[in-house]
Amino acid sequence: MNKEAILKAEILSQALPYIQKYNNKIVVIKYGGNAMINEELKMNVISDVVLLNEIGVKVILVHGGGPEINKTLNTMGMVPKFIDGLRYTDSDTMDVVQMVLAGKTNKDLVKLIMQKGGKAIGVTGIDGQLIEATKYESEHDLGYVGKIDQIHGQVLIDLLDNGYIPVIASVGMDNEGNTFNINADTAASEIASHLGAENMILVSDIPGLLKDRHDDVSLIPLVTDKEIEELKQQGVIAGGMIPKVDCCVQAINNNVKKTVIIDGRIPHSILIEMLSKAGIGTMIVKEGYKEGER
Amino acid sequence: MNKEAILKAEILSQALPYIQKYNNKIVVIKYGGNAMINEELKMNVISDVVLLNEIGVKVILVHGGGPEINKTLNTMGMVPKFIDGLRYTDSDTMDVVQMVLAGKTNKDLVKLIMQKGGKAIGVTGIDGQLIEATKYESEHDLGYVGKIDQIHGQVLIDLLDNGYIPVIASVGMDNEGNTFNINADTAASEIASHLGAENMILVSDIPGLLKDRHDDVSLIPLVTDKEIEELKQQGVIAGGMIPKVDCCVQAINNNVKKTVIIDGRIPHSILIEMLSKAGIGTMIVKEGYKEGER
Amino acid sequence: MNKEAILKAEILSQALPYIQKYNNKIVVIKYGGNAMINEELKMNVISDVVLLNEIGVKVILVHGGGPEINKTLNTMGMVPKFIDGLRYTDSDTMDVVQMVLAGKTNKDLVKLIMQKGGKAIGVTGIDGQLIEATKYESEHDLGYVGKIDQIHGQVLIDLLDNGYIPVIASVGMDNEGNTFNINADTAASEIASHLGAENMILVSDIPGLLKDRHDDVSLIPLVTDKEIEELKQQGVIAGGMIPKVDCCVQAINNNVKKTVIIDGRIPHSILIEMLSKAGIGTMIVKEGYKEGER
Amino acid sequence: MNKEAILKAEILSQALPYIQKYNNKIVVIKYGGNAMINEELKMNVISDVVLLNEIGVKVILVHGGGPEINKTLNTMGMVPKFIDGLRYTDSDTMDVVQMVLAGKTNKDLVKLIMQKGGKAIGVTGIDGQLIEATKYESEHDLGYVGKIDQIHGQVLIDLLDNGYIPVIASVGMDNEGNTFNINADTAASEIASHLGAENMILVSDIPGLLKDRHDDVSLIPLVTDKEIEELKQQGVIAGGMIPKVDCCVQAINNNVKKTVIIDGRIPHSILIEMLSKAGIGTMIVKEGYKEGER
Amino acid sequence: MNKEAILKAEILSQALPYIQKYNNKIVVIKYGGNAMINEELKMNVISDVVLLNEIGVKVILVHGGGPEINKTLNTMGMVPKFIDGLRYTDSDTMDVVQMVLAGKTNKDLVKLIMQKGGKAIGVTGIDGQLIEATKYESEHDLGYVGKIDQIHGQVLIDLLDNGYIPVIASVGMDNEGNTFNINADTAASEIASHLGAENMILVSDIPGLLKDRHDDVSLIPLVTDKEIEELKQQGVIAGGMIPKVDCCVQAINNNVKKTVIIDGRIPHSILIEMLSKAGIGTMIVKEGYKEGER
Amino acid sequence: MNKEAILKAEILSQALPYIQKYNNKIVVIKYGGNAMINEELKMNVISDVVLLNEIGVKVILVHGGGPEINKTLNTMGMVPKFIDGLRYTDSDTMDVVQMVLAGKTNKDLVKLIMQKGGKAIGVTGIDGQLIEATKYESEHDLGYVGKIDQIHGQVLIDLLDNGYIPVIASVGMDNEGNTFNINADTAASEIASHLGAENMILVSDIPGLLKDRHDDVSLIPLVTDKEIEELKQQGVIAGGMIPKVDCCVQAINNNVKKTVIIDGRIPHSILIEMLSKAGIGTMIVKEGYKEGER
Repeated sequence: MNKEAILKAEILSQALPYIQKYNNKIVVIKYGGNAMINEELKMNVISDVVLLNEIGVKVILVHGGGPEINKTLNTMGMVPKFIDGLRYTDSDTMDVVQMVLAGKTNKDLVKLIMQKGGKAIGVTGIDGQLIEATKYESEHDLGYVGKIDQIHGQVLIDLLDNGYIPVIASVGMDNEGNTFNINADTAASEIASHLGAENMILVSDIPGLLKDRHDDVSLIPLVTDKEIEELKQQGVIAGGMIPKVDCCVQAINNNVKKTVIIDGRIPHSILIEMLSKAGIGTMIVKEGYKEGER
Repeated sequence: MNKEAILKAEILSQALPYIQKYNNKIVVIKYGGNAMINEELKMNVISDVVLLNEIGVKVILVHGGGPEINKTLNTMGMVPKFIDGLRYTDSDTMDVVQMVLAGKTNKDLVKLIMQKGGKAIGVTGIDGQLIEATKYESEHDLGYVGKIDQIHGQVLIDLLDNGYIPVIASVGMDNEGNTFNINADTAASEIASHLGAENMILVSDIPGLLKDRHDDVSLIPLVTDKEIEELKQQGVIAGGMIPKVDCCVQAINNNVKKTVIIDGRIPHSILIEMLSKAGIGTMIVKEGYKEGER
Repeated sequence: MNKEAILKAEILSQALPYIQKYNNKIVVIKYGGNAMINEELKMNVISDVVLLNEIGVKVILVHGGGPEINKTLNTMGMVPKFIDGLRYTDSDTMDVVQMVLAGKTNKDLVKLIMQKGGKAIGVTGIDGQLIEATKYESEHDLGYVGKIDQIHGQVLIDLLDNGYIPVIASVGMDNEGNTFNINADTAASEIASHLGAENMILVSDIPGLLKDRHDDVSLIPLVTDKEIEELKQQGVIAGGMIPKVDCCVQAINNNVKKTVIIDGRIPHSILIEMLSKAGIGTMIVKEGYKEGER
Repeated sequence: MNKEAILKAEILSQALPYIQKYNNKIVVIKYGGNAMINEELKMNVISDVVLLNEIGVKVILVHGGGPEINKTLNTMGMVPKFIDGLRYTDSDTMDVVQMVLAGKTNKDLVKLIMQKGGKAIGVTGIDGQLIEATKYESEHDLGYVGKIDQIHGQVLIDLLDNGYIPVIASVGMDNEGNTFNINADTAASEIASHLGAENMILVSDIPGLLKDRHDDVSLIPLVTDKEIEELKQQGVIAGGMIPKVDCCVQAINNNVKKTVIIDGRIPHSILIEMLSKAGIGTMIVKEGYKEGER
Repeated sequence: MNKEAILKAEILSQALPYIQKYNNKIVVIKYGGNAMINEELKMNVISDVVLLNEIGVKVILVHGGGPEINKTLNTMGMVPKFIDGLRYTDSDTMDVVQMVLAGKTNKDLVKLIMQKGGKAIGVTGIDGQLIEATKYESEHDLGYVGKIDQIHGQVLIDLLDNGYIPVIASVGMDNEGNTFNINADTAASEIASHLGAENMILVSDIPGLLKDRHDDVSLIPLVTDKEIEELKQQGVIAGGMIPKVDCCVQAINNNVKKTVIIDGRIPHSILIEMLSKAGIGTMIVKEGYKEGER
Repeated sequence: MNKEAILKAEILSQALPYIQKYNNKIVVIKYGGNAMINEELKMNVISDVVLLNEIGVKVILVHGGGPEINKTLNTMGMVPKFIDGLRYTDSDTMDVVQMVLAGKTNKDLVKLIMQKGGKAIGVTGIDGQLIEATKYESEHDLGYVGKIDQIHGQVLIDLLDNGYIPVIASVGMDNEGNTFNINADTAASEIASHLGAENMILVSDIPGLLKDRHDDVSLIPLVTDKEIEELKQQGVIAGGMIPKVDCCVQAINNNVKKTVIIDGRIPHSILIEMLSKAGIGTMIVKEGYKEGER
């Protein structure tokens, strides 16, 4: 018997307490469009999702798709337009957003899960009116950018109970039949809160929160909601990180036990976060949180 | 008490035997892209589907979306190309087909059902690998046009058992992760056969089978599988009608009790077919079929 | 396609919102002996009940049977006797009341439902001791006239859960094994309250509440519990109408959402009340009630 | 501790193997009108039925009611008429038969069970169309005397599954809505066969099969289907015993394990038959039957 | 028909109200090692337990095994040692205690139940960590004598729901994997409290509480928690009876409806207590208890 | 992010196809007394069992306990006696066998599983009469050595359905209440066959089948039932290996898909066998077996 096989089995064995901890718990994974950088890494993410599902975790995958949307808009001769970092979404753009997110990115992720031997169904906020939304009102008119009014989570519960991995394109719908472009981080946060998730993982293309954004070594491994404010004032949390971190805080203030921002460019970063002692990325928890508690 | 209310109630009352007949039975409705001609008629179809679901029929809606696909291809500067009436589907076209069917047409139908107070989830042949397909081999290479190898119907059974109306975009998938453009009539026929449907209804933009295609009055109300051959030889069934009728024959030879081709341009044609004595369109059944038998 | 079929389908279609509203809700229908005036109208009532059951309403039918009781008493050489409008029920009379209600009227209604393709079981307040009653104490001794002490509704829940239409003869039972003659309006009201019915419909042989009892045109379509008192003082509600209206008020004060007194002499009056916009008879609701609310 | 209590406990203890044998098995008890001779004995029968139900036996009680019917016919000025031992049942008589059996005898038995702390629902062959019947054709027209075409046993299965003791009045119904007077022995036999009962017990007012009908000591404790023919030829089985014994043979030839004719005039004869070693009455089994086998 | 059979049936019949009272209720029976005095009486106890289970009581059997433990210790050359009536349990003794209780006494009881046609599974406080315990701290170190910290009753609920009679050896376990010797009376009391038992029966080798311990006629049939204190002060409850009675008081103060100390030397004393009017042993209840109340 | 964490995650990820393969399948693991050589290795086996259970495998643990039995016999002054490698088991020895296996080894294994966060219940062939056995007849009388007549597997199905890991001491029982010493390999094989296990793993203290028993490098990794005979004739399979291998052949001839003899002295040998590509020990399968097929 070679040493390698024993070592590998030992490593599997070490995952036991983590597997027990997450057994039958809901984990919401948000997989950002920017993190879908290459096919091999994407396959790693999918493989991790299927593995978690197989060992008894109730995984929900929420995805974005910005780059793909831009590409399609360009092909169709439309120019993507952003105001304060948010996509200006007129009616035609909304059509493209829905088509790309629900028809392309979503189904491609479902396809990869099926190929890995998993069982997935891709839905949007329209199906079962999962995401009830209305127009997001802001200083500048953003068109069909929506804010979430209510999550109708029964469709997710039905799918999870039947063993499916729900894959969710973050498009919302109001009662008049208008569809809205919804930020995927927000969708993940609201869904995780609604279902009382054990963990919300944001898979991104950054290492996590950095004290010095030019130095990966300055990664902050753990931060509490109390410390967030300070970090904002210090400018450590700034720009696009602000809404992302706010989503995390929103979640842990609403029944989600912990949230983590991890780097999708690291192979199997999801498994590292969930099934090993080694930390990865930045964990955001409530003041007083103790790992393993409930 | 005015007469009109009594008359209306009497009409409702006359639907009882039809409601009893279809109670808890599966009915597959194929709604063709050409039949989605105006918003009011589309709303009628949706309203009929929701009504049937509400009174205990297990309705499955399969849709096409040809015109919308063409429109999007054009916007993207691609030229739709057909060989023997079938869309030549290269890789880029396939992307658009999937995107439009799954992301636009499908979700728009789901949205309408939700608005009418129904409960729908839109899926494709990719979700739960509902439609396992491989390349359709023919004289001329058609690219990603697929033929169905197997229906994995569990996803539909799960959705129906939870009370949802499944709305299906006819895109298939092979085991290597290729997606295929599947004829919606064929998809409806195979799904109806797989689930042993009580009725398969093809909602089209023609009155049904006509003896003389220039004369709507020449409608053939009922035809058996035996008579089909003859009508083909006589040229009554010709051109695009041949594959459509073949789908129907395929279905009634495989556990589907009856099939009907109806005219989606007539308001509530689905209800007329299912809940009234009045015939509509052309019913295709096996030789020896007796209405109401099983 | 003829116009008539389209019109009929349109009418069916208009029933959708009402069908949705009553889906899986309990509706108690009291069908009085005086309203069983001819066989055709009786068949209409039965047909309506079966239709409602088929489209997902949980219907309970409570019936009286006064005229039939009188007829049998006469045949047996006994003289029906009434005190203040209530039947004086000595021991022998009680035997006849039970025999006629439970053995004749009840089974005849069950038989009609079975013939219409429905699924019914006829019970009394004795079966599963559905109606626990004791002697009704009043100024004049009325013998075995009972008042309801408690509804043991489990038997109804069991029957409804198995898909049956319970048909109830209003005979009650005390713990010593005495049986009692129970007013059918009261039985319906108490059962509807116990089960939190969505609607209690009293099918009678009058148009509803009339301002002028000699003028059918003076029908009061809607009245609230608050207005009832006033109408009593004005003498608009008088005589036999008082206990009937009191039953309705009792019901809406105890978990029943609305009650309606309708005219069983109008064909399909139940369907008109439940599945159409057209009002019929007199609806009695709590002050502040809004149609469709809950 | 007195001896008596110990003795009583010992007797309870001896019932264990019989309780185990009948656990969760179906037993059909036919309780004839002639055996309802006094209130105390009736209460014994009811008490036995409730006890069996309580210890896990699925008991079904089928009853007759001849004497009560005659009494009511007389009160109504009608003369009971019999042809070859069968009641001539014209339309008016049928009304009385139904009324008495379903409205009086049936409900009185249900009432006694409820009083003893049991849980019963009384039904007829009309409810759920339990007994589908047609006119019994014989040499002499017997009017509405019926023969059983089919048992629709679902209603009994539903009631037993919900823990109720079904009490059955033997009235049948055809598809046109005619009701028929059904022999209660036959009804019990057909129901026992349909449900594959473990035991069918006919509670009568005779000791069982007697070799010499004037000598109770000549009781035949056990007889096989093979021996029946011989006993008929010898005239030991004669007159009214012939159809009764035929019902038993019919049952054991159709999935019923054993049948017993017992004497309802002996206190607790049902318990003696079912829960003790002591035989009672006459057991009729198939040639080769071994007690306890299956 | 002989008189004896009728009498026996009458006795069975008298048990009905008691069977109804305990139907589907939990009863915990503690069977002490000293009461296992001869094989015939042991078989009686087992037979009673199986009978109760068969007629619908949810029986749990908790046993001790002191004499057998002493015997085995002796065979192994170890000397049983007691301090204040409690077994001093060093590590080696604990091994023997576990081995004898779980491997011998427990399995022998299970075997007897299986032979009587019952369905039993024998468990300890280790299985499913049913009894979480820690070291019992007292003046004198008692080694591995434990006190119960928590009952994890799910394992019992699972076994009862599947129809098994759980047979429990009173060995506890802490979270570090130490096992503890637990007093069986205490185990029974804590389990009965945790599950809200209807009755806890201590089967012992004494008649019950005696006013004068040398005179069996001085048996106290009923005592309330209030009266216990007085009896202790009077010295009527003394020595080994104190902890036994304390267990009973503990139980009735924690959701157990009544407790009884009965004499296992009387045949079928369990049945006498549970299924007859005759009292046996001493019943201990809360002040104000009324038989049959709830 | 350090390399090690990524590597570990990659290793976890590689287990996915094996986890999928065994999902919801039954695996019987026989853990021999000789393989319980040190506490650390025992903890490894337990940890593997809990891990498998946690990721969805239905694990059953069957254990022996020879060395512990010998030790206890010695302590009690009894001399273990073997005939042809089988323990001569007189009545006193049988008592000790039962006591040690059921009371010590079994409960110690259950305790370890509970400590590792698993959920176990320890049973014997007596509980629910899981193993019905009779005396094993051979040339020399072996006393209470038994052969298995029948497995009553319902108790295992019930425990598995409730999520428990059944831990089984191989003691059997006949219908007269005698208990028998059963070979644990045989018990595992019969149980695996009865339940149609996916895999039966014999954890022993040898590397597997060796061509040359003095050279571990000569391990035979795979052998089919066909090849077994030849190896026996060559003397490669000899002595104590013969019954062990026969158990495996018996299993694969009776619904068990594959069997493996592995070395319990290698850490995590169970995980290596089940969740990795690396082979370990000797796999015994039917001629024509293809890994992964069914």
